Amino acid sequence: MTITLGRIVAELGGRLVGDGSREISGLASLAAARVGELSFVSHPRYAGLLADCRASAVIVPSSLEAQGQALGACVVADDPYLYFARLTQWWRRQHEAGVAPAVDATAHIHPEAHIGVDVSVGPFAVIGARAVVGPGARIGAHSVLGDDTVVGAGTRIAPRVTVGDGCRIGERCILHPGVVIGADGFGFAPHKGQWIKIEQLGAVHIGNDVEIGANTCIDRGALEDTVIGDGVKLDNLIQIGHNVRVGAHTAMAGCVGVAGSATIGERCTVGGGAVVLGHLSLADDVHISAASVVTRSIRTRGHYTGMFPIDDNASWEKNAASLKQLNRLRERLKAAEQAIEQALQNKTAP
Amino acid sequence: MTITLGRIVAELGGRLVGDGSREISGLASLAAARVGELSFVSHPRYAGLLADCRASAVIVPSSLEAQGQALGACVVADDPYLYFARLTQWWRRQHEAGVAPAVDATAHIHPEAHIGVDVSVGPFAVIGARAVVGPGARIGAHSVLGDDTVVGAGTRIAPRVTVGDGCRIGERCILHPGVVIGADGFGFAPHKGQWIKIEQLGAVHIGNDVEIGANTCIDRGALEDTVIGDGVKLDNLIQIGHNVRVGAHTAMAGCVGVAGSATIGERCTVGGGAVVLGHLSLADDVHISAASVVTRSIRTRGHYTGMFPIDDNASWEKNAASLKQLNRLRERLKAAEQAIEQALQNKTAP
Amino acid sequence: MTITLGRIVAELGGRLVGDGSREISGLASLAAARVGELSFVSHPRYAGLLADCRASAVIVPSSLEAQGQALGACVVADDPYLYFARLTQWWRRQHEAGVAPAVDATAHIHPEAHIGVDVSVGPFAVIGARAVVGPGARIGAHSVLGDDTVVGAGTRIAPRVTVGDGCRIGERCILHPGVVIGADGFGFAPHKGQWIKIEQLGAVHIGNDVEIGANTCIDRGALEDTVIGDGVKLDNLIQIGHNVRVGAHTAMAGCVGVAGSATIGERCTVGGGAVVLGHLSLADDVHISAASVVTRSIRTRGHYTGMFPIDDNASWEKNAASLKQLNRLRERLKAAEQAIEQALQNKTAP
Repeated sequence: MTITLGRIVAELGGRLVGDGSREISGLASLAAARVGELSFVSHPRYAGLLADCRASAVIVPSSLEAQGQALGACVVADDPYLYFARLTQWWRRQHEAGVAPAVDATAHIHPEAHIGVDVSVGPFAVIGARAVVGPGARIGAHSVLGDDTVVGAGTRIAPRVTVGDGCRIGERCILHPGVVIGADGFGFAPHKGQWIKIEQLGAVHIGNDVEIGANTCIDRGALEDTVIGDGVKLDNLIQIGHNVRVGAHTAMAGCVGVAGSATIGERCTVGGGAVVLGHLSLADDVHISAASVVTRSIRTRGHYTGMFPIDDNASWEKNAASLKQLNRLRERLKAAEQAIEQALQNKTAP
Repeated sequence: MTITLGRIVAELGGRLVGDGSREISGLASLAAARVGELSFVSHPRYAGLLADCRASAVIVPSSLEAQGQALGACVVADDPYLYFARLTQWWRRQHEAGVAPAVDATAHIHPEAHIGVDVSVGPFAVIGARAVVGPGARIGAHSVLGDDTVVGAGTRIAPRVTVGDGCRIGERCILHPGVVIGADGFGFAPHKGQWIKIEQLGAVHIGNDVEIGANTCIDRGALEDTVIGDGVKLDNLIQIGHNVRVGAHTAMAGCVGVAGSATIGERCTVGGGAVVLGHLSLADDVHISAASVVTRSIRTRGHYTGMFPIDDNASWEKNAASLKQLNRLRERLKAAEQAIEQALQNKTAP
Repeated sequence: MTITLGRIVAELGGRLVGDGSREISGLASLAAARVGELSFVSHPRYAGLLADCRASAVIVPSSLEAQGQALGACVVADDPYLYFARLTQWWRRQHEAGVAPAVDATAHIHPEAHIGVDVSVGPFAVIGARAVVGPGARIGAHSVLGDDTVVGAGTRIAPRVTVGDGCRIGERCILHPGVVIGADGFGFAPHKGQWIKIEQLGAVHIGNDVEIGANTCIDRGALEDTVIGDGVKLDNLIQIGHNVRVGAHTAMAGCVGVAGSATIGERCTVGGGAVVLGHLSLADDVHISAASVVTRSIRTRGHYTGMFPIDDNASWEKNAASLKQLNRLRERLKAAEQAIEQALQNKTAP
């Protein structure tokens, strides 16, 4: 596929500078771009990379218009990174155009399921009784939608996704392979040294425009639903426990674990491998660093961290050993301070 | 489905106080319950929530009988949480009653497999040669049972579960979607800067009444089997390495990793995101906090923790920087103590 | 299957000592071996276990030849662990011999896919348009190979693996169940409190002799490919972000997370549960301890650690509380040192 730069600007906006007839055959990073490719500079600090760039055109902020023009063609945009994001979306749509939606003959669709118009269903997908799949949705090969599930319009479910009975997915969501929505939450009553299962009778409710990464799990609620707000973005291999509520437009990086009944605000970010313990609340606009463990509710927006700094192993061993003495060191320091204080008093005493 | 409170008490015991003819249409938490729903109070400290509760009835400890009666109907139970657990199980059974077991026509069952009575097999499930599926077991859509596998009576295998060749699952177990039993353990011999695979010739042996969460993995042993004891409960996204042994009634929260050849005792709990290193032993009744790393064997029952406390990022940065100086600080403190000691001796010296 | 010890030595080398006619029916660890089984001692420090060993033969280093001979038969090898690794491989091949490759009738193979000779394809596998599967490869039940994928000769793909469109897997690789290759990387442009998706237009390129554990995810690149070098070994439940590059013969244990655009050198090892943040570089031969968080690039080979030491919970609580005062303690120590210095100067002053 080849498209002129002028056509791109006509579709996506921005201000064309230079030769709009240049043919664009692909998108690439500044460092890797070759002739025929379109790249972007998100920030003036990367201006230095432009000199060696071999792209046929670049998207630049207005402060770099001259450098972009020197390449022969550029698009000036207020927010080049955002422009680039929209360009990737448009690019994908061009490539997918012409693929007609189809329901594969091997798909196993319950006669009481309701499949909307323009829905694609892949080979061997299983769709249960009373499931409702909205218009334009795509259900990948081997995915399983349980009974009474809802998948909103335009949602893309990849191959090998499981949506448990009664769970609801909003519109324009993306679920990647291996996602499990609506497995049982982890609930047991202890009894005489054993664990008695609490059947999980709630479901999962996922808003619109949510993206869920590969092999991520969102458990169904014990009684009420687990709720994921609109625009939430979850990376791969994340665990969301039962009854958790995640506010709109919150994003979590890979390998995060959120324990049961935690409530996370809107527009939060949680770094990779972080853990949020159960029954806690995080305010809106809270940012948790990677690998940090949230052990208490956080009521104030801001940036929070708890992570042992990495060091060469020999240094770590010494500091870690001292760490086990830290409270004792604190007491010794207090004693030393008192001895000094005492000595000074003695000296100044008449 | 609607059931009278009296019928529930007749089935599950407890002492009915008030109007047993009330119709119960669902179960709910105290805060969310509406008219027609049954709730519970697990502990007298939640008594305050009863005043505003709109449930038609509650399960209460005897100390809250009066408050329960004030709602018009309650069930007095020795352990309301346990009672509630059993109620959820009974409730689910009522809802599932009438679904006749069936083997889907699309399932791919080896002619030498042995399928017991009253077994359900979902669409596109694959069952290998000489596999034995016990009476009343349910095998979900797209699940794959390898050759020579055993699934015990009454065990429920969700859609999209893999049980590798030769692995054995006990009775009344629950395996959630995406579980992988019996992938190869991670074993290699180093040789000239490369890794030579050690084929994993053992299997996995899982006891009775075990529950395994979504996308959790239990690797097969290198030579002998990996063993999971009776009544073990594993949450989602847990990794159990080869040759691990987990004692009966131990529970692990999400995202735990247990490295190869670790041995974990009975009735242990492991918090979310914790890591147990390889070849270690944990005694019975050991409790590991979330996100802690077990780096040595633990011989004594008790509660163990190792986790960097979370803080606002600016404070964390200062303390983390100081942590890298901790051993040096310890030495400086010792020198200060000696200087003080010396000074005191000099003063008291004749 | 039973094989004489002499036959094994004829196939795999080593020096036979004692009775080569002994029949070997299985492989076992020293502690568990029974009559008829073959075991090994990897290191002279385990020599003590030989006295009680009931194996019919052992593989030993030359320093333990006498003890091995005392059992009646042994194989002397330069590197018994390596010998054992090769033995497990040979053993498995013997067991698999005679299973003819076959393409299951239920597999859903696109007419434009190219399937090499001696390829096995399991039930319900889905292979897309223009996919190329090399000679001798095995594609497990329910696996999905997208359009334009490449799977090299001799590669074994387990049941329930997903390989996204355009991704390439090398020769002799092993992918375990639940692996997801080529899900979208986690890329969004922030815009007015929301996240605008950056479509991920790159793919994944995996070298030869790579092994990938169960439920591990490797995301496709944003523009260029995510690249996994030859001989890399990844354990279960690992997350590899978009644009990551992993050098040849690097090994990672379970539950590791590598964030986007990180570059990891050759022959590195990463312990279980460790996290590597995005855009960092690790040199060749860097070894990261379990559960450590790599927050900066590491330019020098060596062993690096950052992990809070585990302790009994009460001690941890005290030390963790003091840790939040650590920077303040450092300042107090400095003040104490200055007071001491001042006192000493005063005393020695004329």
